[in-house]
Amino acid sequence: MIQMPEPTKERLLHLMRILEKSEASGVTSSHIEGLTGWSSYTIRKDIAWLGGDYGSSSGYHPSVLVPAIKRALGLDQERRFCVVGLGRLGSAYLNLDASAWEEFKLIAGFDTNVNRVEILKSSVPLYPAYKMADIINRFAIELALLCVPEATAQGAAEKLVAAGIQGILNFAPLVVRVPPEIPVRNVYVVDALRSLSIQVKDNS
Amino acid sequence: MIQMPEPTKERLLHLMRILEKSEASGVTSSHIEGLTGWSSYTIRKDIAWLGGDYGSSSGYHPSVLVPAIKRALGLDQERRFCVVGLGRLGSAYLNLDASAWEEFKLIAGFDTNVNRVEILKSSVPLYPAYKMADIINRFAIELALLCVPEATAQGAAEKLVAAGIQGILNFAPLVVRVPPEIPVRNVYVVDALRSLSIQVKDNS
Repeated sequence: MIQMPEPTKERLLHLMRILEKSEASGVTSSHIEGLTGWSSYTIRKDIAWLGGDYGSSSGYHPSVLVPAIKRALGLDQERRFCVVGLGRLGSAYLNLDASAWEEFKLIAGFDTNVNRVEILKSSVPLYPAYKMADIINRFAIELALLCVPEATAQGAAEKLVAAGIQGILNFAPLVVRVPPEIPVRNVYVVDALRSLSIQVKDNS
Repeated sequence: MIQMPEPTKERLLHLMRILEKSEASGVTSSHIEGLTGWSSYTIRKDIAWLGGDYGSSSGYHPSVLVPAIKRALGLDQERRFCVVGLGRLGSAYLNLDASAWEEFKLIAGFDTNVNRVEILKSSVPLYPAYKMADIINRFAIELALLCVPEATAQGAAEKLVAAGIQGILNFAPLVVRVPPEIPVRNVYVVDALRSLSIQVKDNS
């Protein structure tokens, strides 16, 4: 089977979000073009990757297209994740409503500070960091939010990989080095501000 | 002047981060290729946009290349921003060390809940949301982190735009609609998990 190209996947993901939030029963490709800047041709080609026929004269129907995208991207199943590092950001994520995570399920929080693990209130079980490998294996946790400070991020990432984690969302200001088969997405807020900032500069 | 292409800007931004964190005095393009997957040709072409000569036999020198990238991307000046919505995530950002924000400067926090504004401890001045336009203008705030719940995100974005904000980092699970000249970056954590998750799926 031919692999779906990465940009197609990213666009379908974004499209899925637009469709989920859309109140209309039919969303036209020109409406999508207005929101995203992608040409109708690109949108049609991306959707063609899903197979089947999702368009009509009134546009795409979110109720059929969203599940088709989820299936194609493997987002139709529960994915288990953990939070590593329970400082301000980590504990903010720890306390979101379970429903906010949609198909993702927060299974555990970890911190090297045993005291913090004992004191923090959370509806999710918390563990000292040395139990990481045990818990990740026992509960088949696939993904991790890495919310530790910069100085300990590389070490924590390596422990996660050794424990069998399959992907890392990295909030630290650091490009962590892990084996190439483990995807890492860097979501450091200052980098996002910088990306935003260079777009602002263009407009002025 | 020919505009630098968007993908070049994004790569230079990422490259800047790699160089900033690099301990070596010279970083070779093959090292960069190993970390990013970009070809040496792409890296050289991107750097050529900066003008000048930044390479040598020992690779690129972070101490000269980082400032050149900052200048080219307009990141060599202070940028003022505010946090809108002081729930868990917003107040986590409110309490980061000023140094964590690098060239960005957090000037103010806003919340519609006057009580919360009065009670929260913060080294940054907090204001009720109705003062947004006044404060954004008075302190020349350019950017906003939008940390409000989904239900109020569109309204808050519109108020920010009316107040003269120039760019929005949107943490809500919503594609907010604003005039096309105001860039918005969506940094919703579940979307980042989904992006990560589709990369994991490919590997398995």
